[in-house]
Amino acid sequence: MRMIGLEEIEKMALGAALLGTGGGGDPYIGKLMAKQAIEKYGPVKLISYNELDDDDLVVPSAMMGAPSVMVEKIPSGDEAIAAFKELEKNLGKKITATMPIEAGGVNSLIPIALAATLGLPIVDSDGMGRAFPELQMVTFFLDGINASPMVLTDEKKNATLVNAIDGVYAEKIARSVTMVSGGSVLDAIYPMTGKNVKESAIHDTLTLEEEIGNILLSDSNVIESLKNKLNGYVLFSGKIIDINRATDGGFVKGKANFEGIDEFNNQSASVEFQNENLICYVNDLPKAITPDLITVLDKETGMPITTEGLQFGMRIVILGMPADAKWRTQKAIDTVGPRYFGYDLDYKTIESLNGGNENV
Amino acid sequence: MRMIGLEEIEKMALGAALLGTGGGGDPYIGKLMAKQAIEKYGPVKLISYNELDDDDLVVPSAMMGAPSVMVEKIPSGDEAIAAFKELEKNLGKKITATMPIEAGGVNSLIPIALAATLGLPIVDSDGMGRAFPELQMVTFFLDGINASPMVLTDEKKNATLVNAIDGVYAEKIARSVTMVSGGSVLDAIYPMTGKNVKESAIHDTLTLEEEIGNILLSDSNVIESLKNKLNGYVLFSGKIIDINRATDGGFVKGKANFEGIDEFNNQSASVEFQNENLICYVNDLPKAITPDLITVLDKETGMPITTEGLQFGMRIVILGMPADAKWRTQKAIDTVGPRYFGYDLDYKTIESLNGGNENV
Repeated sequence: MRMIGLEEIEKMALGAALLGTGGGGDPYIGKLMAKQAIEKYGPVKLISYNELDDDDLVVPSAMMGAPSVMVEKIPSGDEAIAAFKELEKNLGKKITATMPIEAGGVNSLIPIALAATLGLPIVDSDGMGRAFPELQMVTFFLDGINASPMVLTDEKKNATLVNAIDGVYAEKIARSVTMVSGGSVLDAIYPMTGKNVKESAIHDTLTLEEEIGNILLSDSNVIESLKNKLNGYVLFSGKIIDINRATDGGFVKGKANFEGIDEFNNQSASVEFQNENLICYVNDLPKAITPDLITVLDKETGMPITTEGLQFGMRIVILGMPADAKWRTQKAIDTVGPRYFGYDLDYKTIESLNGGNENV
Repeated sequence: MRMIGLEEIEKMALGAALLGTGGGGDPYIGKLMAKQAIEKYGPVKLISYNELDDDDLVVPSAMMGAPSVMVEKIPSGDEAIAAFKELEKNLGKKITATMPIEAGGVNSLIPIALAATLGLPIVDSDGMGRAFPELQMVTFFLDGINASPMVLTDEKKNATLVNAIDGVYAEKIARSVTMVSGGSVLDAIYPMTGKNVKESAIHDTLTLEEEIGNILLSDSNVIESLKNKLNGYVLFSGKIIDINRATDGGFVKGKANFEGIDEFNNQSASVEFQNENLICYVNDLPKAITPDLITVLDKETGMPITTEGLQFGMRIVILGMPADAKWRTQKAIDTVGPRYFGYDLDYKTIESLNGGNENV
């Protein structure tokens, strides 16, 4: 257990943006909410999964919807309080702690804001170890933990409690409620026991984000240090020559093309994204495929660039990283692999796609 | 209090189709469900509003969604049981009785099926005295009774409890959940006290439907008897010469044109509809406007014809009837008047539009 405050949040926001692999929402909003809550209510208790009792009730929290909408209507703490109260009433039990559902710009930090507001500790774990766009795309779903009962609240004070039969229906129903609630809602979702957290979550995510933030803020050899920290691969180094991007039902879909510089001179690369970066090709060969992580970094500073932030001419490095082993089972690949997202391609591990050759 | 069984249901289905004013869903499905439930569980207790205690908990029930979908997936009793249990759990109180929310083909009879399945009495009242397409279009909404908490259940066993701030948001959220739940759901909605029912509902609706059914089945002068029973106006008599009909988001919108016969020879009429018949013009002058009731009847038998059942060449009579006085306040006209449905027309009562001249 340790207390986290404004300094840790600053670093975690940077790490979350990197693990967000281009998506996961704008860290600025999450940071703003977390900072406001901590200034008002004081620092938050960060606990490790192994500090939980097996029968504790842990409820992950997140924002659902379009980040561009969240900027316009940043949630007050009221939605969080309403959502957690409704869930406690439904379950007839006190909630022990909250937790992020994903590692990504907004949703790593929203639970910190909630923890501060609600006076709850936050668990240093999450359900993805990266960002993904849909509610069933969590390790909890892979382990058969139900997303329901879940509660969605909005800033107008509408509250919807969903008892869906599984994570896929939870996603469908929650997404539709989000749309009519003005485009974004706060979720209290996947209520689970301490034992569930220990067995099913991906651990030490917030601490990892903080360590990434440390590297980004103070390391003199940023890219190399990130690569080592994350067992990553520098897949490409170049500049952006073309971006196709369209918004479709709250999702940002598209492709970015790059031409090589330095050691990648005369080579080409492209990244396919749907909110998150999903496939990276170098010279038309896949070099990293979802669920493995693909992040585009500013070549000089190492700072992560979101899919919405990609701009013509930027000089970048593409970093690929292996996903957690939980994402490499058949059920996981069915849930978040390239075919789920509509690409005609089989998943191969980033290690096998870059076998022996680390590309640097 | 009296018991109702198969014979009463047969008649009520006919009356409900007439008060459904062209919409309200296919009476066949409602009848089928009510009959199945009564055959399995026995007759249902029909009680008058004045038999309720002021602090009884009454929960109206209805199907929401496209009638064409309901035919494909007729609800078992399980959805009803799940919905009522979830609502009792949320409210911490036993439900005393159910009630129709509207008078219309499906939704007059669904609550009878539920009452049989759940072993509850049904109140002889409703929230419209006719059919309307949206959840806020009830006298309860006019009187400030909240639609929430409401529960929506589907045949896959998804259950969603909505705590919306008002009936308009309840409608938006419920409609979106309906769409992702395969197009139709069962609603337990507008939970209210016995006192609320006494003050806000429209009374004796099921008995009126039964009396209309009696006339349709056994009267020798059907149209004249219906007109007298319902303080109605025979607005037109003719045959259908043209129908424009389109389905838009689960709503059937369009217009039917008629040419006169008999005493209306050389005259013309048209009916604008959106699920329900909303405006009737005779010789291009409005003769009945929503919320007043407009029903198209078979000229020979008096049987009501739904907007989906209108066919070229049919010989018909258009019957107009005054809406309940609750539908004639400013708030009511804002909620269900012609401008709400997009028509550039002010509401005038059917009495004033047919002043002195009963058109027969």
